[in-house]
Amino acid sequence: MNLHEQEVIINATTLQNVCSQLYQKVGVAQSDADTIAEMQVLMDLRGVHSHATRAVPGYVRGVISGNINPNPNLQTLEDNPASVLLDGDRGLGHLVGIRAMNIAIEKAKSTSMGVAIVRNSNHFGAASSHAMRALPHDMIGFATTNGLGVNVAVHGARSTSIGNNAFSYAIPAGEEPPIVLDMACGAAAAGRIGTARLYQQKIPMGWALDADGNETDDPTKVAVILPAAGPKGSALAIVMDVLCGPLSGGLMGINKQYQPGDAPMEKRVSAHFFFAINIANFTDVTEFKAEIDRQIRITRQATPRSGFDRVTLPGEIESELTQERLANGIPLHKQPVQEIEKLADELEVKIPWDRQ
Amino acid sequence: MNLHEQEVIINATTLQNVCSQLYQKVGVAQSDADTIAEMQVLMDLRGVHSHATRAVPGYVRGVISGNINPNPNLQTLEDNPASVLLDGDRGLGHLVGIRAMNIAIEKAKSTSMGVAIVRNSNHFGAASSHAMRALPHDMIGFATTNGLGVNVAVHGARSTSIGNNAFSYAIPAGEEPPIVLDMACGAAAAGRIGTARLYQQKIPMGWALDADGNETDDPTKVAVILPAAGPKGSALAIVMDVLCGPLSGGLMGINKQYQPGDAPMEKRVSAHFFFAINIANFTDVTEFKAEIDRQIRITRQATPRSGFDRVTLPGEIESELTQERLANGIPLHKQPVQEIEKLADELEVKIPWDRQ
Repeated sequence: MNLHEQEVIINATTLQNVCSQLYQKVGVAQSDADTIAEMQVLMDLRGVHSHATRAVPGYVRGVISGNINPNPNLQTLEDNPASVLLDGDRGLGHLVGIRAMNIAIEKAKSTSMGVAIVRNSNHFGAASSHAMRALPHDMIGFATTNGLGVNVAVHGARSTSIGNNAFSYAIPAGEEPPIVLDMACGAAAAGRIGTARLYQQKIPMGWALDADGNETDDPTKVAVILPAAGPKGSALAIVMDVLCGPLSGGLMGINKQYQPGDAPMEKRVSAHFFFAINIANFTDVTEFKAEIDRQIRITRQATPRSGFDRVTLPGEIESELTQERLANGIPLHKQPVQEIEKLADELEVKIPWDRQ
Repeated sequence: MNLHEQEVIINATTLQNVCSQLYQKVGVAQSDADTIAEMQVLMDLRGVHSHATRAVPGYVRGVISGNINPNPNLQTLEDNPASVLLDGDRGLGHLVGIRAMNIAIEKAKSTSMGVAIVRNSNHFGAASSHAMRALPHDMIGFATTNGLGVNVAVHGARSTSIGNNAFSYAIPAGEEPPIVLDMACGAAAAGRIGTARLYQQKIPMGWALDADGNETDDPTKVAVILPAAGPKGSALAIVMDVLCGPLSGGLMGINKQYQPGDAPMEKRVSAHFFFAINIANFTDVTEFKAEIDRQIRITRQATPRSGFDRVTLPGEIESELTQERLANGIPLHKQPVQEIEKLADELEVKIPWDRQ
């Protein structure tokens, strides 16, 4: 492991225990706190730090300030054979997502495909942490979310009019790791640009514009995130916003930002859209997984382009990192670790690692 | 209208009549032939020539050679409350898609979401021509397809291991044109590279590699299409392949190509995946459409980047082109028009325009 000078190694279980205790201290039930902490540590294990424990202080402080409900009581607004529309009771997004995805999975067991749409929620972390919950059920999982406000320019624009909405597909394999797509529709997630700021690195040209509308490689000068692949990412961001916002009876991201007086709060905060597809309703699960394994193995054998050592599948590097980090610990930047320590002191949670 | 020296103007209705007659001459029922011709002319009207009447001779000759069934009798292999798995009877892909999408729409009426998956089909044209069939029902439509063989490199590779699978979302608006995403997961559809060849134009760097693994802007030297936005388009291409191939009990594109002896033909030819979401099961349709209209109007007001005159929504330019071309005719390259004329002569269909 190449450790950056600003990094420290923390054991996954230790980190998870601390995070769970932080949530419990602000009123999250123990089993829920454990689950959320596990989802967030999983993202650190997978190397997706932007959506991992780095965000824990923000969520916990959101609960303390009263913006996030630590014990949401989800209400069913519409119930159909293949779908449900839920009100998330302004809950912790992870919790709301878990409960909604569980309903989608149950619906899929009886109808082959289950959809759960939620409004009145909060940031739910990594989309893949929800989509992947379908995998143990031999289902294909999908999760997407929209958010408050907008930070991505539609293709051709230099001003923002869409959120950097993310979505994930998770597909079970057999002996190989699952195929997991998890992408922001912008050229990069805001959290990845934040990581570049944290490590004082440049970002690739094509990710963002500065305040003057020029492309920039300086993460401290980002005013607008560009859409991935121009019109493609731009259109995908709009579609994901529609599936979450207007389809749940709420608003698009931009209207949440600019027309706050026009709609009640429950239509303006984060909304999510999940589905699960029950593979067994369409084909033999073992054959399905064997075919996914074949694709994975053939793809790995593709000739790498210059600049690449090898060819990997979506989620493959993350699976490898997980195994390595479960064994050897997770390298974390000291700054967010210090934020966790500060919060732990305030909430009287013991820090079991050497303080940073 | 700026007419290219190699282009001719043909009236939409005239073109549709000729194409319908061509299909009827090889055994497609009149109402089916009319519908397919209408879908393909619609793509010419929208400016998506790569998936429009240019492809008609290929489909018709496929019927003549016996590879495409002009009167498919679709079989239901699995029927669940929210979904159906169909065998496409090696039919004309457009026809198979129409019938499958109709079933998805009917399922969505009763369960809120309907899925139709088809194997044993053929090239179905533009994904959007199927997804958009959900719009008059006040539904969100989705369509994707995989194909025989592979022409896209997975991210990091210089050899191909995935098809250039396309997908489309269609979202109804109120007074504004619908939002229609239709994208290949590669940096460009093969048909668009073909258009560049036809007009002897360069393609943008980043679309493709030549046989030596170097990026090329020469459409005649394309050996490998690159994925859109690197890992994002790459992962999306894999996901779309999975939804069509393995989920229908068939194969991924690459296995269709390289392991032809391993599976019966019906698992190797094109497969499709469709869904329809019934908006009324989740929210008030009028409110939904009003919110989409608001997003469209706000987005149009975004400041254009340098190099852009204005900011448009997905499908907006295509909607405008349609209106203009319905009034003034469709500019078509003479070469594919000559192919249609040649086929018409063989099948004794009268050409009502001046021959090219």
